[in-house]
Amino acid sequence: MKIEIIAVGTELLSTRFRDTNSLYLTDRLAELGLAVSRRTIVGDQGAGLEDSLRRALSFSDLVLVSGGLGPTGDDLTREAAAAALGRGLVYRPDLLAAMESRFLLRGRAMPEPNRRQAWIVEGAEVLANAAGTAPGQWIEADRRYLVLLPGPPPELRSVFEGGVVSRLSPWARPGLARTVIRSTGLAESEVEARIEGLYPESEESVLTVLASPGRVDIHLAADSSPLLEEWAGRIRERLGPAVYGGDGVELEDVVIDRLIRIGSTLATAESCTGGLLAHRLTNVPGSSRAFLGGYVAYGNGAKIRDLGLDAGLISSRGAVSEEAARAMAAGARARMGSDWALALTGIAGPDGGTPDKPVGLVHIALAGPGGTEAERRVFLGRRDAVKTQSSQRALDMLRLRLRDL
Amino acid sequence: MKIEIIAVGTELLSTRFRDTNSLYLTDRLAELGLAVSRRTIVGDQGAGLEDSLRRALSFSDLVLVSGGLGPTGDDLTREAAAAALGRGLVYRPDLLAAMESRFLLRGRAMPEPNRRQAWIVEGAEVLANAAGTAPGQWIEADRRYLVLLPGPPPELRSVFEGGVVSRLSPWARPGLARTVIRSTGLAESEVEARIEGLYPESEESVLTVLASPGRVDIHLAADSSPLLEEWAGRIRERLGPAVYGGDGVELEDVVIDRLIRIGSTLATAESCTGGLLAHRLTNVPGSSRAFLGGYVAYGNGAKIRDLGLDAGLISSRGAVSEEAARAMAAGARARMGSDWALALTGIAGPDGGTPDKPVGLVHIALAGPGGTEAERRVFLGRRDAVKTQSSQRALDMLRLRLRDL
Repeated sequence: MKIEIIAVGTELLSTRFRDTNSLYLTDRLAELGLAVSRRTIVGDQGAGLEDSLRRALSFSDLVLVSGGLGPTGDDLTREAAAAALGRGLVYRPDLLAAMESRFLLRGRAMPEPNRRQAWIVEGAEVLANAAGTAPGQWIEADRRYLVLLPGPPPELRSVFEGGVVSRLSPWARPGLARTVIRSTGLAESEVEARIEGLYPESEESVLTVLASPGRVDIHLAADSSPLLEEWAGRIRERLGPAVYGGDGVELEDVVIDRLIRIGSTLATAESCTGGLLAHRLTNVPGSSRAFLGGYVAYGNGAKIRDLGLDAGLISSRGAVSEEAARAMAAGARARMGSDWALALTGIAGPDGGTPDKPVGLVHIALAGPGGTEAERRVFLGRRDAVKTQSSQRALDMLRLRLRDL
Repeated sequence: MKIEIIAVGTELLSTRFRDTNSLYLTDRLAELGLAVSRRTIVGDQGAGLEDSLRRALSFSDLVLVSGGLGPTGDDLTREAAAAALGRGLVYRPDLLAAMESRFLLRGRAMPEPNRRQAWIVEGAEVLANAAGTAPGQWIEADRRYLVLLPGPPPELRSVFEGGVVSRLSPWARPGLARTVIRSTGLAESEVEARIEGLYPESEESVLTVLASPGRVDIHLAADSSPLLEEWAGRIRERLGPAVYGGDGVELEDVVIDRLIRIGSTLATAESCTGGLLAHRLTNVPGSSRAFLGGYVAYGNGAKIRDLGLDAGLISSRGAVSEEAARAMAAGARARMGSDWALALTGIAGPDGGTPDKPVGLVHIALAGPGGTEAERRVFLGRRDAVKTQSSQRALDMLRLRLRDL
């Protein structure tokens, strides 16, 4: 089965925007054992889209198109698809009614241009869009399939998962087993060194190591699940406690889950990360059962007033010091009445560094029932990378401590 | 002039490899004032490449192809190009001699498979490759141009810069001026409606509207800077205060900049956004000059203790209420001693909604020297989208208020 993906959008032809939809579709198709043979990006103006659809339908068995289903004048995928197929467009009052009620829920009248989204290609099946107004469309033509998907990524995912995956099942061959192991605390080269030579005796097995700030992922694929499990088990053993979860799992998920399980609570006190740590913790649905709250003690006034830091300590040791981090963690824990508290103080940059206290220096403290521990780190990178790595390390200190309980 | 780029390589169809050659070519063409209308990635096996070349040559004036010129059996671009053009391949002893002497320079004999690289498409001009063995090829056919470039990035750059740029000079129009206008507070369709019909009288002008949660960007390109400026000015006028900045500018940049200019300070009190607002504010370098700190008052205990909320108010009106938001803003402002304070309380989901207070409901309050204002909003989307849009709206309330000062 020949499959191709067409992404519609002039902005995707610049180099500022990444066509994440096509990457998402490629990955999901691969999980179903389906390979993509061509991927195209085409602008939303002019005849390029219609030409691309025509050629795709004469070459491939399945054509997935993302984008150009919005309400505005440069959203022309509906029209181009109808023209390429030699079909008309059909007005669907039921789709209009559904859109109008969606706007009403938000207490707003539906803008006039949205009416365009009630038109579908003749003969198309409507694919419900739980995340937005533009429905997807599944169109069969001479045993070939053209699928129109909305461009905003959450909407594309919703329509693909809800309406397309099941329709692809006749062709799926999910024979290759896949898994992802996520680790933190080791550099990419350390991970590579530890798992060197660990390959199963199988031609199809694939191992890929992918690093991002504060995290190294290991992607594995093998012929069968037992083979994959055995392999993954040996890798986990070599990496030990650095492994914290599987695909899509973040450190905050693990930490919140563990806290809820043992009935413990957490507070935060942040200076250099400026709220990122609390933001990550509260990204986890249900986090309110364990996370009581936090302080973004950016100025010294806040550190003294809300966290009880001693003004003398700040002037003698500095606001960026192990002592300050320890006092912040203890202060947040006492004030919030939590079992645990994490505190960070550092220099995120780009300015404010000194030879003694360079940009990237961060002191992290964890206060808990057994006392307070602290760590000094220097992270490389820009302001956002320093914030990300700092919050990652703070979460990992707590994860490792909770793991030992 | 219609231009398209085709990248050849099965590995580029996975999601692990990025097609950097096409991005390089896109950027360099943009510098020459040449826009790309289609970009395709195609595998190096099967009929897809020939089909893509055929399609491109019937649609575009200039087709740039990268990859598939190597010595191995899966390097088939030469053959596919000849087939798509209905031409033969020609053996060039002078190219073979040049390759052999290149290998000799490194003290090695040329491997036999490299002989394949001495074949070129009939009628092609050879483009010298200073960085490797595979020469590029410039082929004219019916006033259209097909350019074959080697896949390894250093070789592609060498051939493009040395042999292609000068050949493109008849079409180069490096005059195209570009700008981006960023707006917030209006839906994509509202922006579209307001700027409808606003086009300069110029064939080359391009307008693209691009929406993301809480933001709509307008990308403009025009023949000349004066034309662009005049056009952008009329668009800004139509959109009024919804316009907040240009390319790459975030709302937090505008807010922090304005606060610093007028010497004012800010504090935050967050429940549903869980620290995201403070995180965004502290992403701005130098934000410590205006942002004093914030409270992530996730539990009711924190709201009462740190922000001075009345327990009776929470039980009578609820922690998600206009009254609670107002009290949080006033409490943060008083406690932090700031000129301004923003507060948010809401239901980020996915659970916790009721018919009266649905998921996505957010109360936002802004306390300042002139009193406290509040707003009720219902945002759609998942937890992260609700958090993002809430923080965006809060920042915009402050931006608009500071703008009027």
